[in-house]
Amino acid sequence: MIHLVGAGPGDPELLTVKAHRLLRGAGIVLHDDLVPDEILALAGPQAQIVNVGKRCGAKRTTQAEINSRMIESSRGGLDVVRLHSGDPAIFGRLGEELDALEAAGVPFEIVPGITAGVASAAALGITLTDRRKSSRVIIASGHHASKSGLHDKTDWKDLAREDATLIVYMPGSDFSALRDELLAADLDSQIPAIIVSHATTPRQQFRCATLGELHKLPRMEAPAVLLIGWPLERAYQKLSAEDLFLMLAEADLIFSAP
Amino acid sequence: MIHLVGAGPGDPELLTVKAHRLLRGAGIVLHDDLVPDEILALAGPQAQIVNVGKRCGAKRTTQAEINSRMIESSRGGLDVVRLHSGDPAIFGRLGEELDALEAAGVPFEIVPGITAGVASAAALGITLTDRRKSSRVIIASGHHASKSGLHDKTDWKDLAREDATLIVYMPGSDFSALRDELLAADLDSQIPAIIVSHATTPRQQFRCATLGELHKLPRMEAPAVLLIGWPLERAYQKLSAEDLFLMLAEADLIFSAP
Repeated sequence: MIHLVGAGPGDPELLTVKAHRLLRGAGIVLHDDLVPDEILALAGPQAQIVNVGKRCGAKRTTQAEINSRMIESSRGGLDVVRLHSGDPAIFGRLGEELDALEAAGVPFEIVPGITAGVASAAALGITLTDRRKSSRVIIASGHHASKSGLHDKTDWKDLAREDATLIVYMPGSDFSALRDELLAADLDSQIPAIIVSHATTPRQQFRCATLGELHKLPRMEAPAVLLIGWPLERAYQKLSAEDLFLMLAEADLIFSAP
Repeated sequence: MIHLVGAGPGDPELLTVKAHRLLRGAGIVLHDDLVPDEILALAGPQAQIVNVGKRCGAKRTTQAEINSRMIESSRGGLDVVRLHSGDPAIFGRLGEELDALEAAGVPFEIVPGITAGVASAAALGITLTDRRKSSRVIIASGHHASKSGLHDKTDWKDLAREDATLIVYMPGSDFSALRDELLAADLDSQIPAIIVSHATTPRQQFRCATLGELHKLPRMEAPAVLLIGWPLERAYQKLSAEDLFLMLAEADLIFSAP
């Protein structure tokens, strides 16, 4: 039995109890690049820890290599944990892994994890749906797999709804097209947006903007997610007040005793 | 500090490590109706366990009562865990609770949980996104809050995309409008759909259909979610083969020795 396990957003306490148990008993852990050391340290002393991460196209390990490593380890009698960051079913390569395991006739189990978008909302102290403001959540990716041809850079507007919260994984650094298309689809330019990097870890960082100023958001270190929608307002107000405070502090306008 | 905690889909092992810790130390646990006893049993002996659930409009406890109970318990010195089924930020009343806590000046923390849609995908052994088939996940609710006016029964077609996986929470029992609108928006009638009830618990049940036959799906006991999209194909094929097997067995066409 191979366990395809979600490692959650980064905080080791946001692993599920089951993921924690499987990690402790694993013979081999094949993990994504973005899984932090604090989580890998939870594996037992018997475990081989193997980074099979891919980043920005620089493939350290090919998907075929990951698949055969899983299958060979399992056939060799090891308890295999394939550790995906976040949840395995959301923007991982789980589809390819399931195809390979089924073709090889190796039994598997998927253990869900807390996905980055949901973790970021919790870290921001907001809700994603609100019966007064947002009745839907749309999870999309800013990273376009060019070979798939599934969607191109011009179809954001399909997803433009005042009553939805949009979560963009791998948002990249250029938010102008997203901004322009959402505005062209008549979304309110005052809708708050927040980008969250390293949610739930000590390196967690936020930056906020309105939709109208989305293009001014900085690139943030991966893993990052971009959230857009009215339910963010509560966090947006606090963060923009903090930004102002920091700006004034940097400009030496406060903290300056006469 | 009040902890607004996700209890996950039902399996106690799918609690986060943090939720588990907070539950053990809680002075009072205010929980949704759908949180199973096995999870409530994890609270320490000191904890008061209070069901503040609402179901199908029959309000056992009003939202205002939940809010004041949280605030009073916290002011009375109790460690308060407000335990939401699934994730607190997805189709709970977290928005109202945050408003009340902020107005009262009571500090809070949100602890995310595994939401039912993600848990159902794991239970089905499928992925929700697949770079070859589905690049988006849309989370919507089949339960229409009539007072909110946010969306009516005729806007499903906005969400009809061949390359998205649709997850409908509280799907109810009448799937004809959903079927008709998705078909009217040119979605393929062969797209697989699966309804999952009590995901990840011993009472877990699945039923499957194609989009074209969606109206034939039975009502399933809450908590239930309905998933629609090409990535379900892998599970659909297995389940429909099992259905056929059961049907033949019931018709005494197999297992009948001469």
